[in-house]
Amino acid sequence: MQIRIAIVFLILFPFIHILKAQEMKGIKEFYQKNEYTLLSEYFSFLSLPNTFNDRTQLEDNATFILKMMQKAGIKSQLLYDKDKKCVPVVFGEINQPKATKTIIFYAHYDGQPVNPANWSTGLEPFKPQLLSDRLDKGGKFIDFPKPDVKFDPDWRIYGRSSADDKAGVFCIIKAYEAILNNGLNPNINIKFFFEGEEENGSVNLESVLEHNKDILKADLWVICDGPMPASGQKQITFGVRGDVNMHLTVFGPKRPLHSGNFGNWAPNPAHKLTRLLASMKDDHGKVLIDGYYDDVLALTEEEKLAIKNIEDPGPHLQAELGFAAAETEGMSFLESIISIPTLNINGFSAANTGRLASNVIPTTASAALDLRLVKGNTVEGQVNCVLNHIKKMGYHIVKEEPTDEERLKYPNIIFVATGKGYPAQRTPLTLPLAKKITEAVQQTSGRKVVIMPSAGGSLPLYLFEKVSGIYPITIPVVNYDNNQHAENENLLLGKLSDGILTMASVMMYKY
Amino acid sequence: MQIRIAIVFLILFPFIHILKAQEMKGIKEFYQKNEYTLLSEYFSFLSLPNTFNDRTQLEDNATFILKMMQKAGIKSQLLYDKDKKCVPVVFGEINQPKATKTIIFYAHYDGQPVNPANWSTGLEPFKPQLLSDRLDKGGKFIDFPKPDVKFDPDWRIYGRSSADDKAGVFCIIKAYEAILNNGLNPNINIKFFFEGEEENGSVNLESVLEHNKDILKADLWVICDGPMPASGQKQITFGVRGDVNMHLTVFGPKRPLHSGNFGNWAPNPAHKLTRLLASMKDDHGKVLIDGYYDDVLALTEEEKLAIKNIEDPGPHLQAELGFAAAETEGMSFLESIISIPTLNINGFSAANTGRLASNVIPTTASAALDLRLVKGNTVEGQVNCVLNHIKKMGYHIVKEEPTDEERLKYPNIIFVATGKGYPAQRTPLTLPLAKKITEAVQQTSGRKVVIMPSAGGSLPLYLFEKVSGIYPITIPVVNYDNNQHAENENLLLGKLSDGILTMASVMMYKY
Repeated sequence: MQIRIAIVFLILFPFIHILKAQEMKGIKEFYQKNEYTLLSEYFSFLSLPNTFNDRTQLEDNATFILKMMQKAGIKSQLLYDKDKKCVPVVFGEINQPKATKTIIFYAHYDGQPVNPANWSTGLEPFKPQLLSDRLDKGGKFIDFPKPDVKFDPDWRIYGRSSADDKAGVFCIIKAYEAILNNGLNPNINIKFFFEGEEENGSVNLESVLEHNKDILKADLWVICDGPMPASGQKQITFGVRGDVNMHLTVFGPKRPLHSGNFGNWAPNPAHKLTRLLASMKDDHGKVLIDGYYDDVLALTEEEKLAIKNIEDPGPHLQAELGFAAAETEGMSFLESIISIPTLNINGFSAANTGRLASNVIPTTASAALDLRLVKGNTVEGQVNCVLNHIKKMGYHIVKEEPTDEERLKYPNIIFVATGKGYPAQRTPLTLPLAKKITEAVQQTSGRKVVIMPSAGGSLPLYLFEKVSGIYPITIPVVNYDNNQHAENENLLLGKLSDGILTMASVMMYKY
Repeated sequence: MQIRIAIVFLILFPFIHILKAQEMKGIKEFYQKNEYTLLSEYFSFLSLPNTFNDRTQLEDNATFILKMMQKAGIKSQLLYDKDKKCVPVVFGEINQPKATKTIIFYAHYDGQPVNPANWSTGLEPFKPQLLSDRLDKGGKFIDFPKPDVKFDPDWRIYGRSSADDKAGVFCIIKAYEAILNNGLNPNINIKFFFEGEEENGSVNLESVLEHNKDILKADLWVICDGPMPASGQKQITFGVRGDVNMHLTVFGPKRPLHSGNFGNWAPNPAHKLTRLLASMKDDHGKVLIDGYYDDVLALTEEEKLAIKNIEDPGPHLQAELGFAAAETEGMSFLESIISIPTLNINGFSAANTGRLASNVIPTTASAALDLRLVKGNTVEGQVNCVLNHIKKMGYHIVKEEPTDEERLKYPNIIFVATGKGYPAQRTPLTLPLAKKITEAVQQTSGRKVVIMPSAGGSLPLYLFEKVSGIYPITIPVVNYDNNQHAENENLLLGKLSDGILTMASVMMYKY
């Protein structure tokens, strides 16, 4: 019996394989045939401003996504938290009579704030543009081609959220549309979950998950967000770092003072802030704040092994990004990115620099800090380390503009605003369903799929585990050099078609 | 004989005094009668943008000043350097047949750069506005009054250069116009010299003075610039600090990086710059750069005595400006302001803060420094101290954007651009003509005129001494809380009429 089954399997195996290959071909052809329409639609999507916290903008995006889903035959609706406080989640559902597994596909449609002045000439955050290559590599502006002209997969789309994370939303919906269009069916029940508050720290995600617990039952979340590795390999990521932002403002004189008439006498908040920030981190990137590394849980043996199996992208990245020395303590790129918490200055400002600089003592100096957390860290724990350090450095902390009394009483006054933040999350590398998905993704690539124990970036994935005990894994689809979160954000065109293929393969795999 | 002269003097003295008082009254009446016209004209003057380095803007201002002078009957022309590189100096001349002394009156018409976004709501740098009080003290916007309504001397004019230094230009011209209008005559030869490059470090002043040496012969320069002391007393200032700006930019990765995906590994230029700047100055304001204080010449005995005679404005200012501790090393306000060189952070920036902040590792971090020099310091000496310190901190200094080779070779790269700068200047307190001018100013005030050995601020006054050996003294006319060089610059209205009176008195005094 066993031998017979084996023989049948051996005879059938090439057909299964061929069938898979044909299915893949069909998905690719769907994209190629409809490229002009698909990209026109994606450009319309990117033209909708989506700055986090701007509800009107975001609701326009949600409406747009709803329409895309309805066009693809997906039963869809908007989900909210109990009090309808949240920006809507766009939710959809496809049930297969014979499916035994349910996977929820997640992406987010809100974007980071934009400062158009920082974008290069000719680029605007919400006027997507095609370029022949990366702008800093000599990319030229390209007019949107006529319907019969082919798009080059090496071109790039520049615009806010072109990569983070409208690409995720688009690939997931279009993967399902491509499957249907080929007369095929997914082998799983699919749920679609598109969030509109991710860049705002997913402040209402927990209540949304709680409030919609019943319709969000599933076996796994597949998160389509974040960049692929610099090597260009496909990747499945089993965790994320946590994250919390802190905003600091040090106070100087109540009005800006002439640096000649008052310089050397009036306290300068910019000098103060440099001393405070400098006390937080040494020349090698080590955080000098007491207790900052105390709670860290070490990587598991499987996680350590997985990292060993990944080629260190450090040297390649270092050359490409143009610096001689990384700010690590002798760790490899991956180790430093996922095994210890970070303290990063996102930005600082005091009065003006460059052409706008003038000879003044500024009234305030501000900095935005980003704290990334690893497994073991809590938001409260890391924030308290920083607050205690600030106090140790002689500061009186205020929650609003200091009063005159406070100003005259305390020599050093700082305003601190802390974001909500969230902890890190890690899905066990040994999870069976996740292994199958690895195989599904592997089918779409000639190169080995990278198994990454944790991303350096953050998503509030701990919530999926916390609210309903469902593990998440992440499958990124966009190029690593996408300038995510910054000016000149861009998407390599070839990643869009390939992302659709990856998502379709996960939907069609027999689990 | 001697007794007779003494008797004649005693009889005549009250008449001289009465005559003076009448003259003063005439000048005041000229202002009061013509207030509407004068202020309308001043508003037109302030409406002309005058950002340093913008030649077109500045030439429009020069034309406006020429017309004002011609209207006042002053023979005037534009002066240039030999190569006509400079923004024009507006020059005028009045000769009195019996005059034995010639005084050149100086002011400048160019202004510091503006960042309109920093100005308070309702205020624009080049749309002058009347307010009922200082904005931060609850000042309300006031429509420009009709011709028959009185202006209140406590009102303020908000606008760029309302105080620094179009007020100087205006008071000097209008003082002469007021004298003529009263049928009086100056007792000196007057020269008018209005510069258009002061805020740009007076880069061509030396060549202008050289090129026009013959027509600029005189016994003294009277500089009308800078603020009066916080006490509200009138003041004559016998020196200035020197000044030079340095612009620093530290380089990080070539493109902005996601702080999650690269944080803890990619070097962050903002962290680097905080460490560099923090190493330059301690918590008490002491500059930690080797040799920074080495060249300082101590104040003379007369200068020390003059300072002793001035009430220390420190405690009053500290309360008003709202801080608990000054950044001095136990020095009084005046000592710290004029006896040692400064190192001030005018501003710094890296990526964004506040609402625009996003989770990135910035590509660059910049700071603008202001170095004030005292007697003994040279520009080159102070700049070299800073450059050597930067090198000592492990930096490779570049003069342009670093090349890829440099980026990979040097772990710390900094771009440094240094302004031209100029040294300090001090006129001896014992100069006879300056003493007479003190008396002339004293006539216009019921309070004791302050004799200040040096201002904290800077002007390239050393050039007047250097090119033709003529000493300068400075008579400020504007309120101390004018936000000079910063946003919300403003002039207390009463200072304009009083400034005209002061200048007129200096012009009419019998030397």
